[in-house]
This record gives sequence, C-alpha cells and structure tokens, in this order.
Amino acid sequence: MASMIFTDCSSSTTARLLPFTRNPLFRLRDGTVLLRRLVTLTPSHLPSPRRALAFGSSSPSPSTRVTASFSTEASTSASATAKVIDGKSIAKQIRDEISVEVARMKDAIGVVPGLAVIIVGDRKDSATYVRNKRKACESVGIISFEVRLPEDATEQEVINHISEFNNDSSVHGILVQLPLPSHMNETNILDVVNIEKDVDGFHPLNMGCLAMRDREPMFVPCTPKGCIELLHRSGVSIKGKRAVVVGRSNIVGMPAALLLQNENATVSIVHSRTPNAEELTRQADIVIAAVGVPNMVRGNWIKPGAVVIDVGINPVEDAKSPRGYRLVGDVCYEEACKVASAITPVPGGVGPMTIAMLLDNTLISAKRAYNFK
Amino acid sequence: MASMIFTDCSSSTTARLLPFTRNPLFRLRDGTVLLRRLVTLTPSHLPSPRRALAFGSSSPSPSTRVTASFSTEASTSASATAKVIDGKSIAKQIRDEISVEVARMKDAIGVVPGLAVIIVGDRKDSATYVRNKRKACESVGIISFEVRLPEDATEQEVINHISEFNNDSSVHGILVQLPLPSHMNETNILDVVNIEKDVDGFHPLNMGCLAMRDREPMFVPCTPKGCIELLHRSGVSIKGKRAVVVGRSNIVGMPAALLLQNENATVSIVHSRTPNAEELTRQADIVIAAVGVPNMVRGNWIKPGAVVIDVGINPVEDAKSPRGYRLVGDVCYEEACKVASAITPVPGGVGPMTIAMLLDNTLISAKRAYNFK
Repeated sequence: MASMIFTDCSSSTTARLLPFTRNPLFRLRDGTVLLRRLVTLTPSHLPSPRRALAFGSSSPSPSTRVTASFSTEASTSASATAKVIDGKSIAKQIRDEISVEVARMKDAIGVVPGLAVIIVGDRKDSATYVRNKRKACESVGIISFEVRLPEDATEQEVINHISEFNNDSSVHGILVQLPLPSHMNETNILDVVNIEKDVDGFHPLNMGCLAMRDREPMFVPCTPKGCIELLHRSGVSIKGKRAVVVGRSNIVGMPAALLLQNENATVSIVHSRTPNAEELTRQADIVIAAVGVPNMVRGNWIKPGAVVIDVGINPVEDAKSPRGYRLVGDVCYEEACKVASAITPVPGGVGPMTIAMLLDNTLISAKRAYNFK
Repeated sequence: MASMIFTDCSSSTTARLLPFTRNPLFRLRDGTVLLRRLVTLTPSHLPSPRRALAFGSSSPSPSTRVTASFSTEASTSASATAKVIDGKSIAKQIRDEISVEVARMKDAIGVVPGLAVIIVGDRKDSATYVRNKRKACESVGIISFEVRLPEDATEQEVINHISEFNNDSSVHGILVQLPLPSHMNETNILDVVNIEKDVDGFHPLNMGCLAMRDREPMFVPCTPKGCIELLHRSGVSIKGKRAVVVGRSNIVGMPAALLLQNENATVSIVHSRTPNAEELTRQADIVIAAVGVPNMVRGNWIKPGAVVIDVGINPVEDAKSPRGYRLVGDVCYEEACKVASAITPVPGGVGPMTIAMLLDNTLISAKRAYNFK
C-alpha cells in the first residue's frame, strides 16, 4: 500500500512540480527516500478559517512546530458536504477499459503496446515508481521494457538506450525516470526521446500544440490529463466555467490550464507572485491545485459549490502515524470539503490517475503507429 | 499613409486573429481588398457606459444601422486622462536601435541580416504588407528577398522556395505572406520553414518553449512581443500585476498571455465563452485586447488606472471620412482613455510595433547564426 501511496505525481517525477520550494531528499523510517520535503505542520498549516496562508510563505518556522491534530483520513470529516471524487475507482475503470482495448488490438492485428522505462542509479523512490509502472503495465497487458543503469553511467549511455528504443517498433512509449544523476543534463537527454513515443508529453512541441487552437498534441501530459478526466467522469461541465490553476509548473499547472482553456473554461493561473491569490481563487468554479505546499489552499479560498482537484501529495510529519508521516494535499481538505461541491481526496484522488493516463498514452501511441481505430 | 494604416497585425496576416468572426473579403473604395470585415457601427458599438456589449454577440443587425457620431481621431478626446502610449514613436526608436546594430554587425563581421518573403497571388492587401516590410527592411539596412508566385502555383512550388531559403545562409528570416490561396494547406507549408528562420515565431515548438518555464523560444511572435515592448518602454511594471488578455488567438492572445506570465503577472484569458467578461477584465492592472471586434472593451470594463494595450485594427464604415471608413480598436478609446492611466491609440499604437519586432527577430536570427553578441 505504501508503495502505491508514493506514486510520483507526474509519470516520471514530482521533482519539477515545485518551482518555489527546494526539495532535499528525505529518508523515511522505512528507508524510503522521498523526493519531496517532509513538512512539519505549523499553526499556519492547520485548518483555521481565520488564518489564510500567504502564498509563497510556506516555510514552517522550526520554533513554532506543533503536532497535527486533525484527522489523518481526509474523507472522514463529519461535516463534509462535498462529493468525494474517487480517483482510485475512476482509475480502475480506465485501466479496465485499456485492458479491453489492448486485448482487442492484439486479437485484431497481433500487436501489443510496449512501454520502455530507463532508470539510472539506485534511488529507492525511483525504483518504487518504476515497479509500480511495470505492475500497472502487466495489469492491462502492456509489455514493459526496462533498462537499469548505474549511478555513474554516462549521458551518452542513456542516450544510446533511448535511441535503441526509438528504433524498436515494439516500443510505443519511452520514459526516462527522473530525477537523473546530477552529472547528466536532463533536457539534452529528454530531447532525444522520439516525440512519437514521448508518452510523458513533456516535449515543448507537445506543449506548443496544446497551447495552439488548431493543433493537436501527440500526447497530453499524464497528470493534467488525469485531472481533466476526473472532471469529465464526475460529470463536471467545464465549458463556460471560471477555473483557477494554482501553480504554473511545466508538468501540471501550465498544461492543466491549457487543457481547461481548450475546453472553453476561462482560466487564471495563480502563482507565487500573485497578490490576493485567495480572492482570485474564490471566483473559480473549478480549482486545480498543483503547487506542492501542504494545505495551502484553505476553505475560504473556495467558492461555495466549486469543484476542487488536488494534485499535491505532500508528506508531513505525524507522530501518531506508525510511519511517522502522513500525506496531505495542497488543499486543506477538512475546510474545503465543507465548501466545495466535489473534491478529490489525498491520497486516492489524482495520484492513481497519473499511471492510468500513462497506460492510456502508451495505448494511443501503439494505435497510432498501426493506424488502429 | 493608407498603406501604413493597413499594416497586418501579425507580421504575415491578421486573418487568424479572429476565432469567432468570419472575415469575408471587403473591397474598399480605393480598391484595396481588406482581410477584415468592415463593420457598420450600431448602437451597441457606440460608446455608452450604460450599454456593455455582450462578448461574442458582435454582429451588427442591419436594421439598426446608425452613423458613428463620435470623434474619428481617438486621441482628440477632451476629457482623456490616460497617457497615450505612442507606438509609432517607440517603433521608430527601436528601428533606430536596429539600424545601429545592423551596421555594427556589418562592420565587425561583414554579415548583413536578410529577410525573405514569399507571396502567392495578387491580393492587394498582401502586396501592401509585403511592400511595407521591404521598405522597413531597407530603412534599417536589412536585405530583403522576395519571391512572387502566381495564384495557381502549387503547394510544392512554395515548399521548394522555402527549402531554398532554408539552405541560403544569407537569409536569416523567412516569412510566408498569409493568407495563402485556398488550394494550399497553410500548416503543411509553414511547417517547412526552418525553425531557426521562423521569425514569425508561429511554430508550435516556439509556442511550447514560450509556455515552459525552463525553455527559451527561438523567436517571440511579433505582435505580442511588440505589446510587451510597449509596456517595458512606457515604464509599466508587469511583475505581480493582474493582467487580462481579451482573445485567445495563436498569433496574439495566447502568446501575449504566456509572455505576461513569464514576467510574473497573474494572467486570465477572456474569450467568447467567458461569462461576465467585463467583470474579470475590470480586475486587471494590464489589459491586452486582441479579439478583432470594434470597440468591444468598453470604459466600464477598465479598472481605474489600468494600462490598456489595444491590438485591434478594425475598419468601420464612416460616411464622413473621404475613404468611407476609419479604423478603430477593440477598445472603445473614448471611454477607456478617461479611466485608464495609459492606453495605445489605434492607429499608431501596436500596429507600428509589429514590423519593428519582425526586424528585431531577423536581427536576432542573424546574430545567433554567427554567434555575434
């Protein structure tokens, strides 16, 4: 279960999600190394409608540490009125649909979609993510390929493996597990991935096509695609709605905003330089929070009846938990669930959707390669 | 003078600016064929604070035609309080700077920047735009190349000429004058332009780099680049400001929004599906209007003290004008200049900046090709 909780937020990493926090590695009691900073909750992180957390001032002061006192299970709040958007269940449904399609394709033309993952070094978190992806592939019938390289591998070795996968017709998606060792140039390496197999959808050409009205991206990045899919499958109408995306990362915030706009929402992106972020957010019918600051979006940021999608998965200290930590979102669930009409929990909201969308992108790629409808 | 007024809004066309109006050709008294619809002003287009024009409902009803009664010279309004942002003068200053740089480059390494334009067919408006570009090039010392093809040329012929320019080291920028004849696929043709010479900046890879935080586009599209330059050179601070872009076209609205966000504004894009567009626009410290609907943004859309950049250049019927028409922006200048702290006029605001930015992009391209600092 723990391994499922620590799914990475993008399909290859969350490390690039947080533009304005530094994320030192953090080794948990069970030996897992986290990419994300483990935050000690301070009074400013606790739910209090009277105290709105200033955007960007999220660093807890060590001198004001307190123990979190509210429920560790977000969805147990007694006075919640919001419908819980069950990402786990929706992701399961999507995987089932993908399984059917994979089988149909195999039966019809004898082709099985293939996903290749390249992992460099011995990071336990990366190993966990890669294992989860392999299991997810197996569960829907997608073939997974894996290359493991030592920490001291050269950039050229990684590039050589990418090139091999680029030329391998049985591989329809290629992922380079991030972060890469510091001696490697991430952009140089990622740019080698054939755009027709870039199932992460992080290539700037994909982003450009997402931003332009008459273009179609080859792939939509997995996490924002998962957010929109959650809205669609929960019956939330997007067209004509006001939407606020909190956070402007390349892998979630920006593409989520572009996707919402493509569906005819009116979108504002709130970020660390936004004055009165809560005021603007409170105008939104749909809020997507993807900023990597625990509990930053408070109840009084939410317009009554709004729909809230919480992308954050932040480990915070919790002495009461056997693991010493628990996971919270970027939205203060206990407050928001009393105001919103629907909300995703953390964990179990957006997280499970990311891998489901990765599988979907791999299937899409294989179908496209063989023009299989 | 008329030929300067009818500059195209992007460096190659305005035809793609207007996502929700159809633009039949319109032949003016002087024989010029306009790309843009000539609008007969109706009561809904006249300045009246009590009447806010519904976004998207811009089609004038023939049965309610009236003659425009307010001043044809936007900047003559007696009660204006806004500073006029003089695009003509700023563009002149930029051209002078470019001249100096072109001469410096020629002296230092013997290289002169070159801009190639391909024009297909006999459209008079396109011919005017191309002539203006050639004159502008000459005025700063940039060499211009021109290929004129007949209306019935094939797509392959156009592509062949682009390929030649792609391989010609004396050409640093390539423009295909739009619109192309209807038997040609615009996207297929534009995609052939080497991204290193795509001085229009319309390639999706450029747009993707503009949207992503750690990427730099090869070129920034000319009109939105001109808007930002007007703000910079008028001493308008962007960081931390609320900005609204009215219109979401590929060539102005979207890249303008991305540029504003890159400068740390908080940006909302207002479009035809936005409910209460005026309410959201009224929150903005900076408004960029690029929607192609005459006088759509009224005075009561503007927050007192806001800065207004008007990209629209709309010809409207005017019996009092010797030409039978006059030009108005997307912003109702007479109203807005009483509320805003600064505003661009139409004509003489954004228009002159577009060609200046095209020259700048050509210079940038040539400098990059020779690594000339």
